[in-house]
Amino acid sequence: MALPIFASDALSSVAYAPQELLMILMLGGLSFLTFSPWIALAVVVLLAVVVLSYRQLILAYPSGGGDYEVARTNLGEIPGVVVASALLVDYILTVAVSVAAGVDNIISALAVLNPWRVELAVGFVVLLVAVNLRGVREASRAFALPTYLFIGSVGVMVVTGLVRWAVGDSPVASSAQFGVESAGLTQVAVVLLLLRAFASGCSALTGVEAIANGVPAFRPPQARNARTTLAIMGLIAISLFAGLTTLALVSGVRYAEDPCELIGFDCTLPQPSLIAQVAAATFGMGSVLFYVVQATTACVLLLAANTAFNGFPLLGSVLARDGYAPKSLNTRGDRLVYSNGMVLLGIAAITALLVFQADLTTLIQLYIIGVFVSFSLGQIGMVRHWNRELRLIPRQATLERRIALRGRVINSLGAVMTVVVLVIVTVTKFTHGAWLVFLAIPVLTTLMIGVRRYYLDVEVETAIDDDSVRFGSRGDVALVLVGAFHKPAAKAIDYALAAQHDTTIAVHVAVTPRETAQLAADWEEHHVPVPLMVLESPYRQYAAPLAAFIREYRRRHGSSVVTIYLPQYIVGHWWETFLHNRRARRLAQRLMLIHGVAVTLVPWLLDSSRLLYGRAARPMPGDDRAGHAAEYGLVTHLAPEADDATTGPPTPDPTASRPA
Amino acid sequence: MALPIFASDALSSVAYAPQELLMILMLGGLSFLTFSPWIALAVVVLLAVVVLSYRQLILAYPSGGGDYEVARTNLGEIPGVVVASALLVDYILTVAVSVAAGVDNIISALAVLNPWRVELAVGFVVLLVAVNLRGVREASRAFALPTYLFIGSVGVMVVTGLVRWAVGDSPVASSAQFGVESAGLTQVAVVLLLLRAFASGCSALTGVEAIANGVPAFRPPQARNARTTLAIMGLIAISLFAGLTTLALVSGVRYAEDPCELIGFDCTLPQPSLIAQVAAATFGMGSVLFYVVQATTACVLLLAANTAFNGFPLLGSVLARDGYAPKSLNTRGDRLVYSNGMVLLGIAAITALLVFQADLTTLIQLYIIGVFVSFSLGQIGMVRHWNRELRLIPRQATLERRIALRGRVINSLGAVMTVVVLVIVTVTKFTHGAWLVFLAIPVLTTLMIGVRRYYLDVEVETAIDDDSVRFGSRGDVALVLVGAFHKPAAKAIDYALAAQHDTTIAVHVAVTPRETAQLAADWEEHHVPVPLMVLESPYRQYAAPLAAFIREYRRRHGSSVVTIYLPQYIVGHWWETFLHNRRARRLAQRLMLIHGVAVTLVPWLLDSSRLLYGRAARPMPGDDRAGHAAEYGLVTHLAPEADDATTGPPTPDPTASRPA
Repeated sequence: MALPIFASDALSSVAYAPQELLMILMLGGLSFLTFSPWIALAVVVLLAVVVLSYRQLILAYPSGGGDYEVARTNLGEIPGVVVASALLVDYILTVAVSVAAGVDNIISALAVLNPWRVELAVGFVVLLVAVNLRGVREASRAFALPTYLFIGSVGVMVVTGLVRWAVGDSPVASSAQFGVESAGLTQVAVVLLLLRAFASGCSALTGVEAIANGVPAFRPPQARNARTTLAIMGLIAISLFAGLTTLALVSGVRYAEDPCELIGFDCTLPQPSLIAQVAAATFGMGSVLFYVVQATTACVLLLAANTAFNGFPLLGSVLARDGYAPKSLNTRGDRLVYSNGMVLLGIAAITALLVFQADLTTLIQLYIIGVFVSFSLGQIGMVRHWNRELRLIPRQATLERRIALRGRVINSLGAVMTVVVLVIVTVTKFTHGAWLVFLAIPVLTTLMIGVRRYYLDVEVETAIDDDSVRFGSRGDVALVLVGAFHKPAAKAIDYALAAQHDTTIAVHVAVTPRETAQLAADWEEHHVPVPLMVLESPYRQYAAPLAAFIREYRRRHGSSVVTIYLPQYIVGHWWETFLHNRRARRLAQRLMLIHGVAVTLVPWLLDSSRLLYGRAARPMPGDDRAGHAAEYGLVTHLAPEADDATTGPPTPDPTASRPA
Repeated sequence: MALPIFASDALSSVAYAPQELLMILMLGGLSFLTFSPWIALAVVVLLAVVVLSYRQLILAYPSGGGDYEVARTNLGEIPGVVVASALLVDYILTVAVSVAAGVDNIISALAVLNPWRVELAVGFVVLLVAVNLRGVREASRAFALPTYLFIGSVGVMVVTGLVRWAVGDSPVASSAQFGVESAGLTQVAVVLLLLRAFASGCSALTGVEAIANGVPAFRPPQARNARTTLAIMGLIAISLFAGLTTLALVSGVRYAEDPCELIGFDCTLPQPSLIAQVAAATFGMGSVLFYVVQATTACVLLLAANTAFNGFPLLGSVLARDGYAPKSLNTRGDRLVYSNGMVLLGIAAITALLVFQADLTTLIQLYIIGVFVSFSLGQIGMVRHWNRELRLIPRQATLERRIALRGRVINSLGAVMTVVVLVIVTVTKFTHGAWLVFLAIPVLTTLMIGVRRYYLDVEVETAIDDDSVRFGSRGDVALVLVGAFHKPAAKAIDYALAAQHDTTIAVHVAVTPRETAQLAADWEEHHVPVPLMVLESPYRQYAAPLAAFIREYRRRHGSSVVTIYLPQYIVGHWWETFLHNRRARRLAQRLMLIHGVAVTLVPWLLDSSRLLYGRAARPMPGDDRAGHAAEYGLVTHLAPEADDATTGPPTPDPTASRPA
C-alpha cells in the first residue's frame, strides 16, 4: 500500500519528462534527436544515483525529516531553512505542474476543451482544495488504483510498441510527418542546448524525495521497507522513462515548445502530449486503450497534486516544531490550521497557473530549481554526515567503515550531479521566470529565520530568572459578568461557586435601564446566592466601568487576584461567530490588560454546536502519512458522553438536575 | 461648534445640486433654462419644508434615533429596518458622492489631474479610512474651519457676482459661448424632464437628516439647540443654493451630462464644475479667490465624506442595541469593531466609485433614492405620530393641540413632497443603476430581520425555564496546562493556587521528550507546590489526551467542575498574533466542547503589549457626536497603575516580589 501513496508524485513525472527532454533537443533541429539516447541515459543514471543516495539518507535519518533534517544537522541552520523554503515552493509547483500536465493530457484526448485550459487547471485546484478541506482518507483503495493502472497501462503500451517495432510493424506518430527548422548553432550553443535538454529531462526526478519524508508512515521495519519501496519505485520509474523515450523516438514523435514552429502542423489546434501521441500510434487514435492511457495518466497526475496537500501541513508542523513557523502549526488534528494551510497552498498554485497560463514547460523549469536546491543541499549534507561518521568509526570496524565509505561515494556522486543540474537550470532559465524562485526562497528563508529569532527573544523574556520562585498571591475574588439572567449566566455563577473563591460577586454593566430592572427582578425571584453589583455605564462602555470597579475594590480590600467569569457561546455555523462572543472576546482582551486579572470562559453549547462533533470526525490530510489512522479519533473523546454515568448529566444544563 | 460638525454634509450638497439641476434642464435645450427659477424655487420650498419637518421630528424624538426610530415606532418593524438599510446605503454613497464631487472640483482647478480622476477618488477614500483608523478628534478647530470658509467664500462670491450683475457688469462664464442642441420633445417628455431636473436639484437636501441623528451631542437644552442649528443651517443652505443657481444663470453657465454635446467645447478636456465656472467668471480664472473657492469646496466635500465614517458606527450601535446587527457593534469604545466598520464602509464606497467610474451624476441618482426612502418613511411615521398624539391630547389643551396640528400639517406636506420626489427619481432613473439601490435595501433588510430572529431564537433557547433554579455543582479541580516552566506558567500556577480549588494539578502534554525532561527537572529544582502530571501524546495532539485525562479523572473522583488554566500572551503588534496563542485558543475551543469544563486565560503581557495602551488613548470616530469627549478615557483605567500602591507590584511578574 505504501507504493501508490508515495509513488504517484515520482511516477507521474514520467508523464512529462520525456516530452520536455525531446522538445528542447528539437529546438536545435531533428538531427539533434540522435543525441537523445545519450541524454536519456544520463537522466536514467542520475535517477539511479539519486535513488541510491536517498536509500543512504533513509539509512542515516530514518525519522522522516528528509533533506531538511540532513541539511540542518550537517550544514547548519541557514542551509536547513533554505531547503525548507525550497520544499515549500516545491509543494506549490507540484500542484501547479501536475495539474497543468493533467489538463494537457485531458485536452490531448478531448481537444474541444482546449479553449478552457487555464480555467480547467484552476478548477482542478479548487476541487482538490475542496476535497481536502472536507477531509479524505488517503489510504483507501481509490487512491491506490490509478497508480497501478498507470504503471500497468503505460507498461503494456511500451511493451506493445517495442514488440511492434521489433517485428518490423513500427508504430508511427501522427506528428512524424511534420518538419522542424534546423537552427544553425555554434558549438557553445550546441553544448548549452544539450545541457538544457538534460536539465529538462531531470524533471523525471521530481517526487523521488517523497519517500524519505514519509518513513514514519511505513510498517516496521520502517527504514528497511521504505528503502525497498524506494528501490522498486526507482526501477519502475527508470523502465517507464526509458521505454517511453525509446517509443517516442521509434514512432517519430515531434513536439515543439511553440507548436507553430512545427512545419505542417495547424497550430490553432492543441498539440497532443507526447504520451498521447505514443498511445495513439501504438493503440490507434480513439481506441479504448488510448483513452485508458490518457485517463490513468491524468488521474495519476491529479493524485500527485493531491499529495502536496498532505505534505504541506506535515512540513509546516516540522518547521513549527523547530521554531521556524508559528507554533500553532505543530498541533496535529487542528482542522483550522490545516484548512488555512490548504487554502494558502491552493491560492499560491492558482496564482502560479494564472501567471504562467498553465504552461507546463515554464512551470517545470521553476519546479526543477526548487527540487534540485533541496536535492543538492541534502546530498552535500550527506557527504558531511559520512565524513563525520568516518572520523568517529574506529579503524577496526571494517564493515561499518565500508558502509560509510560506500555511502560517501554514492552521495558525493549525487551531490556533484545534482549541483551540476542546478547550475545548468539556473543559467539556462534564470530570465524565463526562474528568478521568481530565487526571489521566493530568500524571502521565505528570511521570514523563517525571523520567526525563530522572535521565539528565542520571547523565551529569554519569559525565562525564570530568580532561583527563589515563590507562590502565594492572596485575596481572591471572582466577578461573574451577567448581562441577563439566562442559562449561560446561571451556569457561570454555578461554576464560580463550585470553585469556592474567597468572594464571588455577580457584576452587571447597566447600559439599558429596562434590562437592568429585569435582571434585578429575576435575581430576587430565583434567590441567586450571590450578591449582584450594578455598574453604571453612561457611555455604553463595558471595559472601563469594570476596570474602575476592580480598582476601587482593590483600594478597599487590598491586593487580590481577580477572576472574571464570562459566559461564552459555542456555535456550529461559521456565521454565528459574527453574532456571538465578539464583544465578550474583545472585553476579555481588554480586561487581561489590567494587572492581576484572569478571565474564565464558561462555555454554553447552543443547539447548533452539535455540528462540530461531526466535523471533528473527518480524516485530516497527512493522517495516513504521519503513520496513524485516527486511533485517537477526536469524536469519541470530545463529545459529551451519554454512556459515561460519572460525568454528570448528559446535557450541560446546570440548573436542571443537580441538587442544591 | 455644532454647526460645522453637522452642517458639512448638508451644506456641501450645495456644491453639486445647482449643477445637476441645470444639467438635466439643458438636456432639453437652452430654452428650458427659463424653467430653472421655478424649479429652483420648488427645491427651496421642499428644503424649507424638510427643515421644518425635521424640527418637528427633533421635538418629538429628541433621543437621536432620527428617521429609523420614527419609522420603527410609528410604522412597525419592517419600515424601520428599511429606513436603517437605506441609511446604510446612504453612508456609502455619501462617501462616494462627496469624494467624486470633491475630485471634480479639484480637477476644475488643476486640469492636469484629469487622467487620474478615479484613482484620485479611490485615494481619498483610502486616506479617509486611514485617518479614521488612526483616530481623529472631530471637534477640533481644523474641522470647523473649512465649513466656515466654504460658507464665507461662496457667500462672498454670490454677493460679488450679484452686485456686478446689478451694476451692469455681469460676470460671463467661459462656457456661455457654447451651444446646446435643442431636443424636440413631446409634451410628456417635457414634463418628465422638468420632474427629473427637480429630482436632481433635490440632491441639495441630502445631509439635512444628520442633525436629527445627532441631538445627544448638543449642549443642553439639546432639542432646542439642535432645532436652532437646523434652522440656521437651512437658511444658509437655501441662500447658497438660490444664490449659486441665480449666479450660474446670470453668467450663462453651460453644463452637459455628456460634455461632447456642448457645441464648441473640446470634450477631450475636463468640464469644469458649475461652482468653478461661476468662481472663474466672478473672480477671474486663476485668481487667488478662485482657488480659495475651489479649495474650500473640495475641503468641505471631503469633510462631508468624513462624517459618514462617524455616522456609520453610531448607526451600527443603534441597530445592535435593537438586535438587528451583531451585538458586538453596540460596544462603545471597541476599536476593532469600529475599524472593521470603517474598512467595510471604505471598501463599499471604493466599489461604488470604481463601478460608476466616479461619475457624479450617476452616483447622485442612487444617493437621492436612499435619502428620500428614509425621508419619506420618516415623514409618514411623523404623520402617524401626530395623529396618535391628537387622539391622546384632551380637547381642552388647546396649545398642545395647536402644536400637534401644526406638526401634522408640516409633516404631511413633507411626506407628500418627499414621496413624490422618490417616485420621480425611481421612475426616471431605475434603469440607470438605481435598481442597485432597490436590490441592496431589501437584501440588507432581510439580513437584519434574520439577525433579529436568530437572537430571539437564542433567547428562547437560553431562557430559564425552571422556577427552582438551584446552584451547587461539587467536586472542583483545576488543571494548569504547562508547556515549559517559564514566567507565564508560573503566573498561571500562582493564580490557580490563589483561587484555592479543591485540587490543583499541573498537566503537561508530552510531545517532545527533551522538553518534558527539562520541565520535570525545573519542577524539582523550584519546588513547585503543585503535582505535575505528564500525559503521553504519541501523535502530537493536545486536546485528545487532555480529554481522555479529564474523563479518567472523573471516573475515579466522581462528577466535577474542571477549570483549565491556560497562560495567554498579550502582544502589541498585529503580526505577533500569528505567532502566539493560536494553539491555545484552538485548544480552548476544543476543551470547551467537553461537558463541565471552563477555561481560565491567565494573561502574560509581553513587552510589546505596551503599544496597546497608546492605541487605546486615540479618539474614536463618533466620540464627539455621541456627546462625550473621552471623559472615560480608557488609557487611565486599563493601564497598570504605578501610583496605585494597593494593586500589588507594578510589573505583572508573580515570581518576583510576593512573599510565600
